[in-house]
Amino acid sequence: MGDDAAIIRPRAGHETILTCDWLLEGSHFLLDRHPADSIGWKCLARAASDLAAMGAEPRCFLLSLALPAAASGIWLDEFLRGLRAASRHLNCPAAGGDTTGRDQILINTTVVGECRRGRTILRKGAKPGDAIFVSGRLGEAELGLRLIRRDKRRTNKGDARLRKHLYPEARLGIGAWLARQRLATAMMDLSDGLSSDLPRLCAASGVGVRIESQRIPALRLSGLDAKKFDALELALDGGDDYELLFTVAPENISRIPRSIAGTPLTLIGRVVRETKVLLISESREEIPLAKKGWDPFRK
Amino acid sequence: MGDDAAIIRPRAGHETILTCDWLLEGSHFLLDRHPADSIGWKCLARAASDLAAMGAEPRCFLLSLALPAAASGIWLDEFLRGLRAASRHLNCPAAGGDTTGRDQILINTTVVGECRRGRTILRKGAKPGDAIFVSGRLGEAELGLRLIRRDKRRTNKGDARLRKHLYPEARLGIGAWLARQRLATAMMDLSDGLSSDLPRLCAASGVGVRIESQRIPALRLSGLDAKKFDALELALDGGDDYELLFTVAPENISRIPRSIAGTPLTLIGRVVRETKVLLISESREEIPLAKKGWDPFRK
Repeated sequence: MGDDAAIIRPRAGHETILTCDWLLEGSHFLLDRHPADSIGWKCLARAASDLAAMGAEPRCFLLSLALPAAASGIWLDEFLRGLRAASRHLNCPAAGGDTTGRDQILINTTVVGECRRGRTILRKGAKPGDAIFVSGRLGEAELGLRLIRRDKRRTNKGDARLRKHLYPEARLGIGAWLARQRLATAMMDLSDGLSSDLPRLCAASGVGVRIESQRIPALRLSGLDAKKFDALELALDGGDDYELLFTVAPENISRIPRSIAGTPLTLIGRVVRETKVLLISESREEIPLAKKGWDPFRK
Repeated sequence: MGDDAAIIRPRAGHETILTCDWLLEGSHFLLDRHPADSIGWKCLARAASDLAAMGAEPRCFLLSLALPAAASGIWLDEFLRGLRAASRHLNCPAAGGDTTGRDQILINTTVVGECRRGRTILRKGAKPGDAIFVSGRLGEAELGLRLIRRDKRRTNKGDARLRKHLYPEARLGIGAWLARQRLATAMMDLSDGLSSDLPRLCAASGVGVRIESQRIPALRLSGLDAKKFDALELALDGGDDYELLFTVAPENISRIPRSIAGTPLTLIGRVVRETKVLLISESREEIPLAKKGWDPFRK
């Protein structure tokens, strides 16, 4: 820190993994609705999730921040508090960055990780017959975003339904375990939503998939939420979950535990040769899955 | 490319050097005055200059780009043409990135470099008695910026006076040579201007400097330019030059050549114990150097 660039001594026998990620006021967060500490947490957790998706472990991060003078007081303090909390939680210290002035808050986070040579898991590699798994529950972050948008009062950080939207978890432990055990044939993280991300994994691997709607780990909505929202739609099209999507060869399916450290791992379908992305409904209807997840160019 | 993150295999016995750099429409460039290919060239050259400043060599880069749909046609093609030219010129291939939509063009470039272990040159390390050198000529990029701002016509890419502003050079060869020869006790690149950057090197090293105005390699202005501009002021306060500022122990001064591959290396002053930054005028007056370089928060 303080020099023109950061210096990292690579660990012997390891590969360096690099990823960068935008988090922009107006596009990815709203200054008046999102607590500053959640922005600090999220900008690092989101980028670290790309490491989890490769089976890598974080080493350090660089933060590029552009902000108005008005945000350099309390907002910045709270932002840094959330960033430090994520940094400790993910065991990923700051190594450098670049700061400039701007009328809106712009954040770009570069995360550096490591993985033992040859153990990284790519998006290509899924083969017909492989099982498709997801970690955690899907749609929870999207539910949080919708609740924040509807509620005009100050965002209540204590509301458990907002937790995953405000303070997402990068599934680093699960990703690293799958890499160590060589159990995943392909992997990516769910950042834009299953219906948008699943076709990307299929395209990279040159395969198709059949997923079963009743196997998808959607939310169990209750009360008013159950009337307002469709849990399956949230699970298919909701972004920002940062859960892992991975494929496993048939002979290894039994080696995937039901959960790791409290996070469920759920088999949701199979990889097939025909390059279609099909959703099998409860009535066994085959529905082509439309990409309805987050698209920064559609908005 | 195409996966969640980029994978790099570090070279044995080397350290990994990382730096990131903003280039923002309105703050760092004007959409209607700066040719798109120069923005593509500059976003990589600027970031690579931070590697030169450490004595490192580039390995690859990640590009984060946010842009409006309107810029995704001809502008983007030209931008990528300039970026590819810089990538080839600097021997620094693309390894990944992140793209999103935005009303203005936002660019963040992360560059990854390598340096043999223990050979990186930091800002700290300058000692009283060391000589201070700069590479190239100073003020040229600032002259280009002022000419572009004054001239309301379309920017003429062929005007030699604009060259350094539009297509800056990262002094990678000079930086790496100084690192290999272990000749520089401290180094940084001049991105904000000598009057702003010199105090940073002094602060990091806990020293002061005395630089001599008539030794500073300012431009030789001619014709109208000589009437309109003050070459010394351009050299002291002009940003964007990306020349190297470095210090050399007295016993090694004779080992610094007058130029490397056509780029002059000029001794401009001495490091002193007293922590002041003084400019010695032609009449031997001692003038405290005021920080008048580029400041993103002042504008």
